[in-house]
Amino acid sequence: MTRRDRAASPWIPRVAAGRLSRYLRYLEELEARGEATTSSKQLGDALGVTAAQVRKDLGYFGQFGFPGLGYKISQLIPDIRRILGMERTWSVALVGIGNLGNALGRYKGFHAHGFRLSALFDANPRIVGRSVEGLKVHGTDQLERVIRDKGIELAIIAVPAAAAQAVAEQLVRAGIRGIYNFAPVRLSLPPEVAYVSIDLAVELEQLAFLVSQRDRDGLEGQDSGA
Amino acid sequence: MTRRDRAASPWIPRVAAGRLSRYLRYLEELEARGEATTSSKQLGDALGVTAAQVRKDLGYFGQFGFPGLGYKISQLIPDIRRILGMERTWSVALVGIGNLGNALGRYKGFHAHGFRLSALFDANPRIVGRSVEGLKVHGTDQLERVIRDKGIELAIIAVPAAAAQAVAEQLVRAGIRGIYNFAPVRLSLPPEVAYVSIDLAVELEQLAFLVSQRDRDGLEGQDSGA
Repeated sequence: MTRRDRAASPWIPRVAAGRLSRYLRYLEELEARGEATTSSKQLGDALGVTAAQVRKDLGYFGQFGFPGLGYKISQLIPDIRRILGMERTWSVALVGIGNLGNALGRYKGFHAHGFRLSALFDANPRIVGRSVEGLKVHGTDQLERVIRDKGIELAIIAVPAAAAQAVAEQLVRAGIRGIYNFAPVRLSLPPEVAYVSIDLAVELEQLAFLVSQRDRDGLEGQDSGA
Repeated sequence: MTRRDRAASPWIPRVAAGRLSRYLRYLEELEARGEATTSSKQLGDALGVTAAQVRKDLGYFGQFGFPGLGYKISQLIPDIRRILGMERTWSVALVGIGNLGNALGRYKGFHAHGFRLSALFDANPRIVGRSVEGLKVHGTDQLERVIRDKGIELAIIAVPAAAAQAVAEQLVRAGIRGIYNFAPVRLSLPPEVAYVSIDLAVELEQLAFLVSQRDRDGLEGQDSGA
């Protein structure tokens, strides 16, 4: 398979895309340590999947290891970044500057991975006008105008559950193309808007489940989340 | 299948357990609205899976709908809670009271779902002694003693990446049985310790991937995360 074929960017299942993000993190770790190559086995061991699964995941976009050599890290990293849409910087709006929103506004990991928080919004007049990491908080009445003016494509929702659907609809009207929702509620969105949600309590519940299952079945073995 | 058989608590795949948490949230919504029954189709539509998948997931623990009647919500909720290990309250320690840890310490969703934050820890002497929601922050030098004294089983790690592995090892020595990790780093843990992790930037990267994929392939259709 040639480079040209790979550029065709095939459809990749969401679950495989999740693993690609995690391969990428691990490859960046390896590169920082000065490693030049890796193998399906090493990648699989690091993420808790089989070498066959790694080969299949990387095969979606035509990355094949060489017997006895493995993968070139310097080639695999930009290939995965391109497949994930991370060869560019994304502007992100954050709505809801309460405790969680404030923490997300200061979270260093977003910037480190090619995201730029470009606008903050809150409905509370006591929060509007404050600054988080040098960025001023706008009122939600400014949301559509600011997002259009800045050409922002992604938005994080960190408002209370009761307010989330209305905020989502405002974001959709503003032309937002993807929503990352922290409010513990299902949002109803048009199909053209991409959607990722995290319910922090659901993840903790999953941990309780894993501990309970160990109790009941004497089960062992690590199970990595998210 | 009798009630007794169901009490045997079969092994349930992790991905199915994730859906059980989300069925539970939706069932609680339905119950709050005064509904008495639901169907595989309704549950599936709400979560974006097929009715057959719902039947399979609930079948793991012997819950079968009745033709024309569906499932009794008042029976399904406690059954799912029991399977998830949520028929009890879990005590949780939180390590790292920076921006994110502070937000997690105030997050109402944990308490609402049967978790009790019972101890807070930080390594920074300027943070030790502060209170978050009435709970005092201990120094990490007190971690093992406090966790043992209080019989805490679950812990949330919200420290910087560079400190996370050492904190995890301290938690393991203290007898913690499950770790919920927000530090963007893979932790190496003994197999008897359950593990769930969230990398907030990885999830945002997944959103960027979904938007990019729509660009490239004209793909439509919602894809819910985590």
